[in-house]
Amino acid sequence: MIKVGIVGGTGYTGVELLRLLATHPGCEVVAITSRSEAGRPVADLFPNLRGHSELVFVEPDPTGLQSCDLVFFATPNGVAMTQAPALLSAGKRVIDLAADFRLADQEVWEHWYGMRHAAPDLLAEAVYGLPELNRQAVKQARLVANPGCYPTAVALGFLPLLEAGLVEAGHLIADTKSGVSGAGRKASVATLMGETGESFKAYAIGGHRHQPEIRQTLAQVADGDVGLTFVPHLVPMIRGIEATLYARLNDTTADLQALFETRYRDEPFVDVLPSGSHPETRSVRGANHCRIAVHRPLDGDVVVVSSVIDNLVKGAAGQGVQNMNLMYGLSEDCGLNQPALLP
Amino acid sequence: MIKVGIVGGTGYTGVELLRLLATHPGCEVVAITSRSEAGRPVADLFPNLRGHSELVFVEPDPTGLQSCDLVFFATPNGVAMTQAPALLSAGKRVIDLAADFRLADQEVWEHWYGMRHAAPDLLAEAVYGLPELNRQAVKQARLVANPGCYPTAVALGFLPLLEAGLVEAGHLIADTKSGVSGAGRKASVATLMGETGESFKAYAIGGHRHQPEIRQTLAQVADGDVGLTFVPHLVPMIRGIEATLYARLNDTTADLQALFETRYRDEPFVDVLPSGSHPETRSVRGANHCRIAVHRPLDGDVVVVSSVIDNLVKGAAGQGVQNMNLMYGLSEDCGLNQPALLP
Amino acid sequence: MIKVGIVGGTGYTGVELLRLLATHPGCEVVAITSRSEAGRPVADLFPNLRGHSELVFVEPDPTGLQSCDLVFFATPNGVAMTQAPALLSAGKRVIDLAADFRLADQEVWEHWYGMRHAAPDLLAEAVYGLPELNRQAVKQARLVANPGCYPTAVALGFLPLLEAGLVEAGHLIADTKSGVSGAGRKASVATLMGETGESFKAYAIGGHRHQPEIRQTLAQVADGDVGLTFVPHLVPMIRGIEATLYARLNDTTADLQALFETRYRDEPFVDVLPSGSHPETRSVRGANHCRIAVHRPLDGDVVVVSSVIDNLVKGAAGQGVQNMNLMYGLSEDCGLNQPALLP
Amino acid sequence: MIKVGIVGGTGYTGVELLRLLATHPGCEVVAITSRSEAGRPVADLFPNLRGHSELVFVEPDPTGLQSCDLVFFATPNGVAMTQAPALLSAGKRVIDLAADFRLADQEVWEHWYGMRHAAPDLLAEAVYGLPELNRQAVKQARLVANPGCYPTAVALGFLPLLEAGLVEAGHLIADTKSGVSGAGRKASVATLMGETGESFKAYAIGGHRHQPEIRQTLAQVADGDVGLTFVPHLVPMIRGIEATLYARLNDTTADLQALFETRYRDEPFVDVLPSGSHPETRSVRGANHCRIAVHRPLDGDVVVVSSVIDNLVKGAAGQGVQNMNLMYGLSEDCGLNQPALLP
Repeated sequence: MIKVGIVGGTGYTGVELLRLLATHPGCEVVAITSRSEAGRPVADLFPNLRGHSELVFVEPDPTGLQSCDLVFFATPNGVAMTQAPALLSAGKRVIDLAADFRLADQEVWEHWYGMRHAAPDLLAEAVYGLPELNRQAVKQARLVANPGCYPTAVALGFLPLLEAGLVEAGHLIADTKSGVSGAGRKASVATLMGETGESFKAYAIGGHRHQPEIRQTLAQVADGDVGLTFVPHLVPMIRGIEATLYARLNDTTADLQALFETRYRDEPFVDVLPSGSHPETRSVRGANHCRIAVHRPLDGDVVVVSSVIDNLVKGAAGQGVQNMNLMYGLSEDCGLNQPALLP
Repeated sequence: MIKVGIVGGTGYTGVELLRLLATHPGCEVVAITSRSEAGRPVADLFPNLRGHSELVFVEPDPTGLQSCDLVFFATPNGVAMTQAPALLSAGKRVIDLAADFRLADQEVWEHWYGMRHAAPDLLAEAVYGLPELNRQAVKQARLVANPGCYPTAVALGFLPLLEAGLVEAGHLIADTKSGVSGAGRKASVATLMGETGESFKAYAIGGHRHQPEIRQTLAQVADGDVGLTFVPHLVPMIRGIEATLYARLNDTTADLQALFETRYRDEPFVDVLPSGSHPETRSVRGANHCRIAVHRPLDGDVVVVSSVIDNLVKGAAGQGVQNMNLMYGLSEDCGLNQPALLP
Repeated sequence: MIKVGIVGGTGYTGVELLRLLATHPGCEVVAITSRSEAGRPVADLFPNLRGHSELVFVEPDPTGLQSCDLVFFATPNGVAMTQAPALLSAGKRVIDLAADFRLADQEVWEHWYGMRHAAPDLLAEAVYGLPELNRQAVKQARLVANPGCYPTAVALGFLPLLEAGLVEAGHLIADTKSGVSGAGRKASVATLMGETGESFKAYAIGGHRHQPEIRQTLAQVADGDVGLTFVPHLVPMIRGIEATLYARLNDTTADLQALFETRYRDEPFVDVLPSGSHPETRSVRGANHCRIAVHRPLDGDVVVVSSVIDNLVKGAAGQGVQNMNLMYGLSEDCGLNQPALLP
Repeated sequence: MIKVGIVGGTGYTGVELLRLLATHPGCEVVAITSRSEAGRPVADLFPNLRGHSELVFVEPDPTGLQSCDLVFFATPNGVAMTQAPALLSAGKRVIDLAADFRLADQEVWEHWYGMRHAAPDLLAEAVYGLPELNRQAVKQARLVANPGCYPTAVALGFLPLLEAGLVEAGHLIADTKSGVSGAGRKASVATLMGETGESFKAYAIGGHRHQPEIRQTLAQVADGDVGLTFVPHLVPMIRGIEATLYARLNDTTADLQALFETRYRDEPFVDVLPSGSHPETRSVRGANHCRIAVHRPLDGDVVVVSSVIDNLVKGAAGQGVQNMNLMYGLSEDCGLNQPALLP
């Protein structure tokens, strides 16, 4: 029984992690910390957990986590990097659901996140926790950087094409759309229902932090650097990401459907839909799956991939649990085999 | 391992039943019938079930159900009553998720449902499957009439008050609200997103089929007949029912909070919230729980109860599974202990 | 041409007032104040006004409003009462869209709003701006207290019944539902889309500020005090209020449909729907109308009224414009005759 | 006073046209036809029109339209082409809101619409009613083909770039998103709220009828043919289209902001937002405007344009009214100068 601690946990990623771990047969959450909610039962803050968790938020002092084997950070960016070194030194393993260890290049990280990195020595050790790319490394990792939500959806869609060298890597386009839970659970005018309901918009067209993260991942499999235009959009719904990916084909004779099916044949959480399909975000709501379809419109030289995930599951907490399963030798889908909630 | 058959199953109640049974450890779905979708894999119609079900819809002829122990009807009203007699004769047990066996009085049923009842002899035998009221009878039942969605939310809210004789039973009011999945999955203009999104309305104020069903249940516990004004409303969301109940108190000194907590102390699926709470439908999304709060506004002589369920779970498929568990001696919450999906 | 000033105006009531006045032929907005947004063009904050308004928010000092004939307060509760006296002394007329002057009884106001009233002398003078009840007084008023959103929907639904003495006034019930714009445009977790989307709940069952406001209005027409149970609910949509009203009839022989049609025959903004109808909030989205249907379910002794308004129009800014029209002798529907936006 | 007839008008385009014409000072709707709703008042079908229209649907026989000057077709594809010839012969002018006359090439039309064209002789005469491109021709036109919703949003976004020859015309990408009202008001499972709410998906990736329409328009301004990948998506909201457009720049030194502002300086309904902006669909809800922003992400060689319209207004009925105004010498914005409804 893995003893799990959670730092943070008052946001949407936190409650989703608690939901998934509540029925996970291989672990037990022994501590959850929150400065603002210390002393409050988690089931008071999140009533869906009534009857499923007796946990009470505790002050974020280190003693609370002493009994843990593994610590999840479900905190804003910039927290895990200050606390992870001590936890690792104390023999614990760490999965950061935020962005602190996602970029290997310290300078790039500091540029996009606007602060000094507090633990640059760990950047090289941290494993980017995309199991479909780095499964073996995750198994051995002390420190896992859980991928961002958009990067998960985009990377899984482009991987087969780049690994096969079938597309012009210099001009990739990712047009992505997310439900509002991606913006987190914090007081703000911009994500009020009155502001986001019944409306749709692009944002951060000029540049978004997930762009360098995706480029880093894609460069790992492409022959050299990649060029990527990345545009996110806000959808008037709560959960779900859809990424529509565009690339120009070097070779229009390749069997793209077979390529994707072969690449993901043994992946428990990547589902390549039949030719001609259009994945819906609701088909993965609450589930850890990524569903993908690949198209070549009007038989031209542009490939279009549509990829959907639940941003809080495969895009955050669920992928974290998947990584935990790998780190501790459990079945990769342990605690993650519930069907999505549809409708 | 209970061998389960499903008749119908192309609607929202059907897919929800399949979702719940996909991870239920005590049963196996061996057949699902649909005239319109025969030959089609269920996971093709409902992509959330990809990887969870290999079932293929078959023609609704009786041989398909021969190997079943238990048959669920997830059909429109009027179907189960024509097929249940033969299945019962063949030694199977039946749970009807539709309304065919909910009203004990044939005449009343025929008035509200606008057709002749095809199996009136079974009305007396059918057990109304509200476990919180009829648990022992359900255990022995061959034929269970699974309660309607509104009736479940309303009955659970009024039961403690009526059992204790604390309210004027002649003038009860139930103001109820439902997400659109309650209207089913059939082509219709009235439930298009363009018609129901960003709007709210009452409907069927003049009279609704669930009114006699609720009155029958409440009369079972009240001292004689009850008077009930029942008004349903359509909410621009998919899942969830909230019922706000009003009654005049005979006795304003009673401890209503204690009354509710005591009544439901041992119920696995009825959660009485702390005093002063307001249950949200999202706190039960995908879960089989009913969450209830009881209030006495401004310390007056009117009691107000707010009760929430997921109309597709505790209001339909989940309660059906709860009844199945009771009928076969399984733990009542077997396969039903997932937390709700929030947000 | 009426010279209009607006104090506040960065919230939803403010932008709606600006929208309505942008095409109003009888007035001109000459100043709008906001401490937080001073110096910013209103069309920058509210892009729907691009091309319709050149206004720039100015600091809320008194000189900015010197040129106005009429000042609207679109501010939080407690602001208008501190500034109205000076404006009235300077010969201006005032319409407060907030609650400062809605309750005639200072003590009751201070109890519900939790502060000392800064201008109690004006409470007796202020006219409660429900034209359907106080039209003549509004025409002469220097100071209009614009009614609350729920109180408008509830009062218009009960008025005919109470005026005719047809119902037991001691046990009225108002079950009301509002879109989230009613909670305003301020940073808050509780009204995030992630918290309010796809969910429904009651709130403030124990007591809500609109309860005494409604009672005061109803008592004006009933024979003595009234008893009212008032329960509001939050609907996952942006605009719209529906109120379902319940009362016990003294006389079940009255022609309720005729009563309502007669009462509102000459009202430009109250539309009594044909017998058997169910008003939808979308039928008044963006419009100043209240649509009402009256029912007697199952021919019993309970009358049920369903009343819908747009909370930002007839429930706030639109009713304010209606009052302005009356105060300045314009046609009552001047600038208010646009059809609702449907779908 | 223009005498207007409407053929069809029971769908969303129809009710929107009726809403806009209800307050249009220069025309009068004298007849509206519908086979299915003949005899029914339009305000009965669309309650937002109560008090604004006394019209009653009539049978679609030709005599009903004899008194009209102008006939709008708000019908499914394939209807206008059968009736327009007779109306034109009778001296009437016609605006088809459907697709019958949008493609100049009969063969291409028949391929995409799957039927024989009934009036191919009129294809050459029909004017494609995008005023920003064809204003002078519209003024003289007897027969206007009102553009599709996606084509309007996409064409207005690409026009300045193609006219200036700044982008590689062979590899344009349009990633477009629409609310569900674009799918019309007809009974269907696919557009139920239970199917489309809280979910997002791409559709018709393999090919969509609006692709050839857009290519035809863009080819008119580009130097030769253009290559276009067009992918539409369904957004869980009712109204609004956002188009995100991608193209590779030939010249990264051009001032794109100035280019767009200059191109649309005199256009009453195209609003170029300040540099760095992100248009929201709600900023045009109910209004005839297209709002556009142009970006060059990370100062690279890809230009990204985001363009929003209300699919029922600038994407259908509103553009039809704009064309009518041009045809009859009215001010182009006559009846179209209401601000959008926000929130």
